[in-house]
Amino acid sequence: MRSLVGDLLQLRLDAQSDGKLHKKLYNTIRHSILEGSLPPQSRLPPSRDLATELHLSRNTVLRVYEQLLAEGYIVSRTGSGTFVAQTVPDSLLSAPLSPVENAAGELSSHLSNRGQALLQRSSASPRQWGAFLPGVPDVNAFPHALFRKIQSRVSRKPQASQLSYSDAGGSQALQLALVDYLRVARSVKCSAGQILITEGIHQAIDLVSRMLCNPGDKAWIEEPAYWGIRNVLTMNGVNLEPVDVDLAGINPPDTGDGAPKLIFVTPSHQYPLGCVMSLERRQRLLALARQTGSWIVEDDYDSEFRFSGQPIPALQGLVDDAPVIYTGTFSKTLYPGLRLGYLVLPRPLMQALKTAHAELYRGGRLVDQEALALFISEGHYTAHIRRMRLLYARRRARLAGLIVAALGKEALSEFNDNAGLHLVLSLPEHCNDAVLASQANQRGILVRALSRYYSGAHPLKGLLLGFAAMEEETMESAFKVLLECIRENS
Amino acid sequence: MRSLVGDLLQLRLDAQSDGKLHKKLYNTIRHSILEGSLPPQSRLPPSRDLATELHLSRNTVLRVYEQLLAEGYIVSRTGSGTFVAQTVPDSLLSAPLSPVENAAGELSSHLSNRGQALLQRSSASPRQWGAFLPGVPDVNAFPHALFRKIQSRVSRKPQASQLSYSDAGGSQALQLALVDYLRVARSVKCSAGQILITEGIHQAIDLVSRMLCNPGDKAWIEEPAYWGIRNVLTMNGVNLEPVDVDLAGINPPDTGDGAPKLIFVTPSHQYPLGCVMSLERRQRLLALARQTGSWIVEDDYDSEFRFSGQPIPALQGLVDDAPVIYTGTFSKTLYPGLRLGYLVLPRPLMQALKTAHAELYRGGRLVDQEALALFISEGHYTAHIRRMRLLYARRRARLAGLIVAALGKEALSEFNDNAGLHLVLSLPEHCNDAVLASQANQRGILVRALSRYYSGAHPLKGLLLGFAAMEEETMESAFKVLLECIRENS
Repeated sequence: MRSLVGDLLQLRLDAQSDGKLHKKLYNTIRHSILEGSLPPQSRLPPSRDLATELHLSRNTVLRVYEQLLAEGYIVSRTGSGTFVAQTVPDSLLSAPLSPVENAAGELSSHLSNRGQALLQRSSASPRQWGAFLPGVPDVNAFPHALFRKIQSRVSRKPQASQLSYSDAGGSQALQLALVDYLRVARSVKCSAGQILITEGIHQAIDLVSRMLCNPGDKAWIEEPAYWGIRNVLTMNGVNLEPVDVDLAGINPPDTGDGAPKLIFVTPSHQYPLGCVMSLERRQRLLALARQTGSWIVEDDYDSEFRFSGQPIPALQGLVDDAPVIYTGTFSKTLYPGLRLGYLVLPRPLMQALKTAHAELYRGGRLVDQEALALFISEGHYTAHIRRMRLLYARRRARLAGLIVAALGKEALSEFNDNAGLHLVLSLPEHCNDAVLASQANQRGILVRALSRYYSGAHPLKGLLLGFAAMEEETMESAFKVLLECIRENS
Repeated sequence: MRSLVGDLLQLRLDAQSDGKLHKKLYNTIRHSILEGSLPPQSRLPPSRDLATELHLSRNTVLRVYEQLLAEGYIVSRTGSGTFVAQTVPDSLLSAPLSPVENAAGELSSHLSNRGQALLQRSSASPRQWGAFLPGVPDVNAFPHALFRKIQSRVSRKPQASQLSYSDAGGSQALQLALVDYLRVARSVKCSAGQILITEGIHQAIDLVSRMLCNPGDKAWIEEPAYWGIRNVLTMNGVNLEPVDVDLAGINPPDTGDGAPKLIFVTPSHQYPLGCVMSLERRQRLLALARQTGSWIVEDDYDSEFRFSGQPIPALQGLVDDAPVIYTGTFSKTLYPGLRLGYLVLPRPLMQALKTAHAELYRGGRLVDQEALALFISEGHYTAHIRRMRLLYARRRARLAGLIVAALGKEALSEFNDNAGLHLVLSLPEHCNDAVLASQANQRGILVRALSRYYSGAHPLKGLLLGFAAMEEETMESAFKVLLECIRENS
């Protein structure tokens, strides 16, 4: 059924002959507010409903609402909806277009559709260091002085070729060091030639998806999944199909019908939920990929940090010549700002993807890579990981204790495995975790809402709490503030 | 501390149920070598260390090493240790199909169309350092010791936030340093907020083209142009329209009909020909862009190196609020492997493109950026450029002298301006410069064929000769080899 407001807006929309839809809708609502046909404090329909009523995409409506919100025409009240602002400043009634409005209006005319879509789902936190920020290790615990000494050793007499652009693939010393490390620590089977050094996982996924997918090709991603993968894949025109995750990881269908080109998984430690993919699922997934010719992209972002039981070997090494593209990063084991990661490429792809990498990104930073190779081969890397594993295990236990003490056992999501750099705090289904997270953020507590990691409907509600970078003392006081936010919202 | 090799061997030793210790160890190492998990040239731990790690007597380890040595599996190098032999006969006998062989047939069925297209026009040189390689500065002349000191100062007490992911835009200190530098050196008008630090020009163009162009949108590029721009734009689905360059630079049409979304130019020093865009052309281009809503992307890659006359101010600063996206790099002024560059964004775009950068690439490396900011603000950057300008001017004169002495004045392309890091040696129209360049490359002379920089038919023929990284003595002998190649081809 169409609402009254919907009727009004439809009439006026129809009266506007041309222009882009979002611009027309924006003008219509703004005009209706200014001339009083949408009086102060009147309720606007939920974006989803209005979209259905007006036969527009929900994104169009959301975008218009956001712009009106930013300009003060409407306000949003948690849990009750969107309303016309009580007082629309007089200035708006008489003023010519403000420069901000101007910019906002013009901006969308400049940006590409893929650009606008990216900004609408933009997810990177505006702050990259602070209480409970997930995904960040304790960068202060890194042995900076030691690493600087190694860097100095390497860069004292750098070879000219180390200072130029990189050959395809990156530093051979780092490739060799990684072969050894990955074999022992992750049961990854590869030769140095299969390793391609990247700037991190974003670049790795960008390369793989552009080189293997045509626009319109399909990729499975876990539901929920890391927002960065969604951004990169969507930007490259790849169609995402979310596949639900349960306690045993992603649950692939039994038949290969409609199999995708790429299957993105985090088998060792599902991001963000935290569960481990079972052996049965791994074998089924490998069998499916072999049968359909799909490539599995295994993102092994933080598997080094497992605090009890055996380390979980990588999917890549489970069978010989697995149809798996393995990607790892030093962002979690060392520090994110280093911006180094790697791909382990299946033999049939290795030369093509290395060449493409040099063409698209022009590598370099061979001195940094040589230093890192020494850091690994001299044993400092595994030693650092061992130290961090102990430290993070303590911090995780402390945070889990705080959560259980304050909110009961059920607040610790059953998905949480004893691993990683963050915990998921479960919230009741009716709770708006996005609003809660945004309120906490304003108070300096950089938790993230679990629902934000879902593509589709029916997300689990919760908060991601990073514990790795938090000293135990500050953890307690920060958790108190978070608790206040939670209680205000329940 | 246990070595990685030690870890591997321990795992495998444990897996063998019975047999004498030395036999088990022999089998384990031999098997690891044969199946490649101990690859050729990888280092084995000293016998004493391995004995300790594996809780064996040193004699057992020594005996096994001696046997493997006798059988040719490992080699011993005095003073450096024991290594897996480079060629192990057994492994060759049992090896599966070589990856190359395997790859050839299957590869195209895996790759996307855009991926195959990229590989077909792949252009990055397989070697990134050597005689006459264009586009590379003298990386040995960079004050490495000084820069290392500055880096140490910054990284002695790094703030945690400098080690995490970057905020949108990069280090503020570097943005501020660049505002000053660009104003004075390049007449660029901007505020710090307009500057976005990138990994280099490839990333800058990738970001701009994805955010501003829909697939199928049009961009003008200069004919000829840098191959990297073509690769990135084509990968992003942008349709390229080459616009011919004459001695006054790109010649834009007089009407705005069919104007593109983006116009890529190198006004200060056309790449690769070397000419400068005239003021009349600049004004026409700016007027056209204003009229049609196109954005001009000004790639100012090496304009610092101009050896006579006044420096040529950037297009960006010619008028206020120019519709220009300016991009620069430290690859030519410092060294390519540093992988840092920047965009100066027009105000309407700056927030959107910074947000998009954080979403797509996740920046970092703030410590490197802070160090570079100090390097600039303390005056070392302009001092280094001044020194290099004198050095490159000498080298350019020497190379020009060699060319004219051997091949006459007409061999120096009329496009060459007294600037930059390379010269264009003109060849007769009938000459196949690609074949010539490939023959020279095989003899270690890394010149590049001018025709390779053209999209369309009727290219000028010639060779790009980088002179910046060549000492004058080696230049002469390398040029002799090149001359032989030229004479064999004419």
